[in-house]
Amino acid sequence: MKVRDLNRTECLKLLRDARLGRIACARDGQPYVVPFSFAYDEGDHLYGFSTVGQKIEWMRENPKVCIEVEDISDKQNWTTLVIFGLYEELEDIEEFEEERAKARELLGKSPTWWQPAYFVGVARGEFEEVPVFFRVKIVKITGHHSYNENFEKLIPQGQPESLKRKRIRGLW
Amino acid sequence: MKVRDLNRTECLKLLRDARLGRIACARDGQPYVVPFSFAYDEGDHLYGFSTVGQKIEWMRENPKVCIEVEDISDKQNWTTLVIFGLYEELEDIEEFEEERAKARELLGKSPTWWQPAYFVGVARGEFEEVPVFFRVKIVKITGHHSYNENFEKLIPQGQPESLKRKRIRGLW
Repeated sequence: MKVRDLNRTECLKLLRDARLGRIACARDGQPYVVPFSFAYDEGDHLYGFSTVGQKIEWMRENPKVCIEVEDISDKQNWTTLVIFGLYEELEDIEEFEEERAKARELLGKSPTWWQPAYFVGVARGEFEEVPVFFRVKIVKITGHHSYNENFEKLIPQGQPESLKRKRIRGLW
Repeated sequence: MKVRDLNRTECLKLLRDARLGRIACARDGQPYVVPFSFAYDEGDHLYGFSTVGQKIEWMRENPKVCIEVEDISDKQNWTTLVIFGLYEELEDIEEFEEERAKARELLGKSPTWWQPAYFVGVARGEFEEVPVFFRVKIVKITGHHSYNENFEKLIPQGQPESLKRKRIRGLW
C-alpha cells in the first residue's frame, strides 16, 4: 500500500461526489464532532442543513470548523479529505435568499440525507425547531489517497476518482 | 424511521465492536478531525496508536477530545456514538508499561487498522517517527440509534447490536 497527497483540485473533485461527512466545532477548548450531510458544487463553499442543537449553537459562537470526509473501500484502499473552514449561517432574510436557494437545490439532490438530524430533533420533542441552512467557507482542504501499487500502475495519476471501484453505500 | 437515545451500557457494548472512528482535537478554537483506529475492551478508557503529527501535537497541548463512531447500514438504519474524552499519552516509561501492553494487545487484534497513519508518515518521509500509544478517558458517551419501525417490532428493545443485519467493511 502507498499513500499520496491529493492537490486542491483533486480534493474538490472528490468533494463534489461526497454527501456525508463529519463536522467538528469547538467551545472553550472542547471539540465536538458529529456526522452531517452536505453538498458541494463548485467554488469556496459547501452547504449544510441542520436543526438547532449543540452543533449549531457552538458554531454560532465560534465559526471555526473542521470537516472530515472519507471513502474507505477496504483497509488498503481509502481516500480521506480534511477541510478547515468557517461556518456561515444562511439566515432566513433577503440578504441570504440566493444562497439559501442554492443550498436547498444542492441538498435536495439527495433529500433523505438530511433526515437523520431532523428526526433526532423530533425524537427529542423539538417539534418546533426551525431548520437551519448554513454554508462552510473552505479555507484549506487536504487529502490522502492510499492505493494498491499493482493496481495503480494500470491507471493514470491525477484521476483518483477513477479508482473508486467500489462506491460504498451511496455516500460518494 | 425512528430515532432513540442509547444508554451508557448500550453505547459501551457497541464501542467494544468498533475499530474505526474519527477523533477531534482543538487548538486556539480551531477544531481538527481525522479518522483513527482504536480498540476498547471495558472500563473507562479506549486505546489508540499514531505516529507523531498534528493530531498528537495538538492533543499534547490540549487533552480535550471528541470521538465519533458510526455504523450506517443505509440511510434509515444507523447508529452513532459521540464521546467526550481526555487524551492521555502512554509514554515509553515504566509507569505506563502495563497500559502500553494492554494497548498493544487490544490494537493487535486488528493489526492492519493502524497502518494508514503509519504509512502516511512514511509517505511524508517521516521514517524516524516513533509510534505513539495513547488512551482516551471516556468522560461522557452518548449514542443515537435509528431504526425502521416495522423491523423493530420483531426485536426486543435494549439489544441494538442484534439489529446489525449488515456489518459494514468489518469496521464493527
